[in-house]
Amino acid sequence: MKYITGGVCAANGFKAGGLHCGLKGSGKMDLAMIVSEATATAAATYTRNVVQAAHIHVTRGRLEEGTLRGVVMNSGNANACAQDDLENALEMCAAAAGALGVPAKSVTVASTGLIGQSMTPKMADVKKGISALCPILSENGSGDAARAIMTTDTVEKEAAVSIELDGKTVNIGAIAKGSGMIHPNMGTMLVFITTDAAIGGAALKSALTSVVGASFNRVSVDGDTSTNDMCLIMANGMAGNSEIAERTADYEIFREALLGLCIRLSRSIAADGEGASHLITCRVRNAESEEAAEATSKAVISSSLVKSAIFGNDANWGRVLCAMGYSGAAFDPRMVSFSFRSENGSVAVCENGRGLDFDEELASRVLAAHEVIIDIDMGSGMAECTCWGCDLTHDYVKINAEYRT
Amino acid sequence: MKYITGGVCAANGFKAGGLHCGLKGSGKMDLAMIVSEATATAAATYTRNVVQAAHIHVTRGRLEEGTLRGVVMNSGNANACAQDDLENALEMCAAAAGALGVPAKSVTVASTGLIGQSMTPKMADVKKGISALCPILSENGSGDAARAIMTTDTVEKEAAVSIELDGKTVNIGAIAKGSGMIHPNMGTMLVFITTDAAIGGAALKSALTSVVGASFNRVSVDGDTSTNDMCLIMANGMAGNSEIAERTADYEIFREALLGLCIRLSRSIAADGEGASHLITCRVRNAESEEAAEATSKAVISSSLVKSAIFGNDANWGRVLCAMGYSGAAFDPRMVSFSFRSENGSVAVCENGRGLDFDEELASRVLAAHEVIIDIDMGSGMAECTCWGCDLTHDYVKINAEYRT
Repeated sequence: MKYITGGVCAANGFKAGGLHCGLKGSGKMDLAMIVSEATATAAATYTRNVVQAAHIHVTRGRLEEGTLRGVVMNSGNANACAQDDLENALEMCAAAAGALGVPAKSVTVASTGLIGQSMTPKMADVKKGISALCPILSENGSGDAARAIMTTDTVEKEAAVSIELDGKTVNIGAIAKGSGMIHPNMGTMLVFITTDAAIGGAALKSALTSVVGASFNRVSVDGDTSTNDMCLIMANGMAGNSEIAERTADYEIFREALLGLCIRLSRSIAADGEGASHLITCRVRNAESEEAAEATSKAVISSSLVKSAIFGNDANWGRVLCAMGYSGAAFDPRMVSFSFRSENGSVAVCENGRGLDFDEELASRVLAAHEVIIDIDMGSGMAECTCWGCDLTHDYVKINAEYRT
Repeated sequence: MKYITGGVCAANGFKAGGLHCGLKGSGKMDLAMIVSEATATAAATYTRNVVQAAHIHVTRGRLEEGTLRGVVMNSGNANACAQDDLENALEMCAAAAGALGVPAKSVTVASTGLIGQSMTPKMADVKKGISALCPILSENGSGDAARAIMTTDTVEKEAAVSIELDGKTVNIGAIAKGSGMIHPNMGTMLVFITTDAAIGGAALKSALTSVVGASFNRVSVDGDTSTNDMCLIMANGMAGNSEIAERTADYEIFREALLGLCIRLSRSIAADGEGASHLITCRVRNAESEEAAEATSKAVISSSLVKSAIFGNDANWGRVLCAMGYSGAAFDPRMVSFSFRSENGSVAVCENGRGLDFDEELASRVLAAHEVIIDIDMGSGMAECTCWGCDLTHDYVKINAEYRT
């Protein structure tokens, strides 16, 4: 497996693009599309929030048949809990399908932005934008599509990998957005993945679900699970490999590559958390079960107190142990040891549940790096899990106190 | 039931006090005691964190017999996950009991402050402090005791009520501390309640448990459940009422008064949340069950995005509906309506799951008040619940990035 360029256009037969249609007052890009030349097998995971945006309902319906030709996305409005939200979502699909000359059912939609504001007054602009965008979709358009789905993101998020399957090169690419309202609970952000692999619908869904559980669902920015989270994958078979079925060696290779891709995007999303100045990686090892490892790791990266301490480069390790303690996992604190690590070094702070005398200056230096790893040994088993988060900064508060203004 | 002054000394036979013994570098008070003239029936609720401070273990042991004469408290050190933590906790009890001339088993202990730092180097100062404090305990000492248990609290928290039970005046008083590391999960902070009621151990425990569930466990500052949370009540019977038993009218009067007292303290704790500029009260009505009402109300007051919006006086109501949606409670968003209220007015923002056109200027004015009430009608039943929280501000981040320095 090797990382390549091209984002969602790295896979054969996919074009993408983005432009400004008028949803964002700033003049920044706010409309994107990804289209496959051939009909693609598709699968998705969705937010578990009880309150769900219109595009979640539309995509669930579209995927009953399990194939798609494309997706149209907008930022600047979540199209959730708003007047005519479902009607407007369906109208976006119809407009895109019309411009592409494909059946309306073969296009789905995704939205991100402010909840509760009707898109109706902007629908003429959106449809004009879709007409303008279709002719300029291209194999170099992944970056524009990635930029057009950004909200408070500060960088666009793209990644792509290639693998060999029965002598054919198979590519998988993705774009993602996500910066706030992010917490592990299925999907947790907008992610669009394309691949030219030939793969059956059941195998695709199973690979996606297991990978999302071990990547995007292990990211938290602020504990708020959005109404709009969705991760969509489209596989158009243009690589020419023999169709991948579950429980085969090819499936494992494909799944591993998809996992690598999704972990890379998960790390970008955590690192670009609203206002973040640190990427926090919490690796829990030697836990009794993967569930316990995941619960404790998620509690640590989600703790406001741990996040604030890392912002201050302060090795206040008691907060790490405290967060593990309220995670819901059962464990013996007297078996727990951990250290802070980064490119600047490593400092052990807790052994068998008790504080160690450590060099405060070294600890500050370790924590001053952009990525800080909290490396926890639970001393009670063989399971492990890694989760990703970011620090809590003045800027998170600033961004979210003024989001609508 | 009427509110009175005197805090933990409002009940007959209780003395209290506080002083600086040297645990805090600032010179502020850091050692407190509450002592009853007569042996008191006692009960407590504890943190549900798996990692528990030494004083939790000690108090559990002390309360096996169900009676106490007093409690010694310190701030400036949590005495948790630290070398010799249990030994030092027991030594504090022994020193206090020795100075009071009562059995060591009849005194318990509570600590709050930094986790993981051994108290051993300071134990000589602490014991000197205890010797100095015992002779100056007085019926006017509640305020000093309340101040001596503060950490990042900005105001001391005291309350007291009196009721009439079979012709006798019964008093209940309390002090509390709590500002950060606060989240509903049993106890959630340090609270000490005294009463001169005569009440059996089982009735006292049952009243305390039900009241804590409906008051302190409905407060969240930052989602972090501490290792040290404890709520302790001592009843010395000096009011001369006939002993209160469960399932009697007297029990209900006592329980109501205790609830009123604890809600008042809960509100003070939420309002004094670290860095807070708003008290947020979320009242959920017409829910299918109390569990659903509590889950949605807690999710709203715990949401970083709701908290940031309230800090910015921004009526970003979509975040309220979003938080309800990930609370774990099942409900139909199309039945939900809500408004923001305060002493400055009221503004309806969402009706049947859809946004209303509202006056933004009025909304900003409503949200500018110190206490903001989010008043939610779930439209699906008869149950209700109120929870209390605070906004997320620059100062929360500042306080917690620099806590150890």
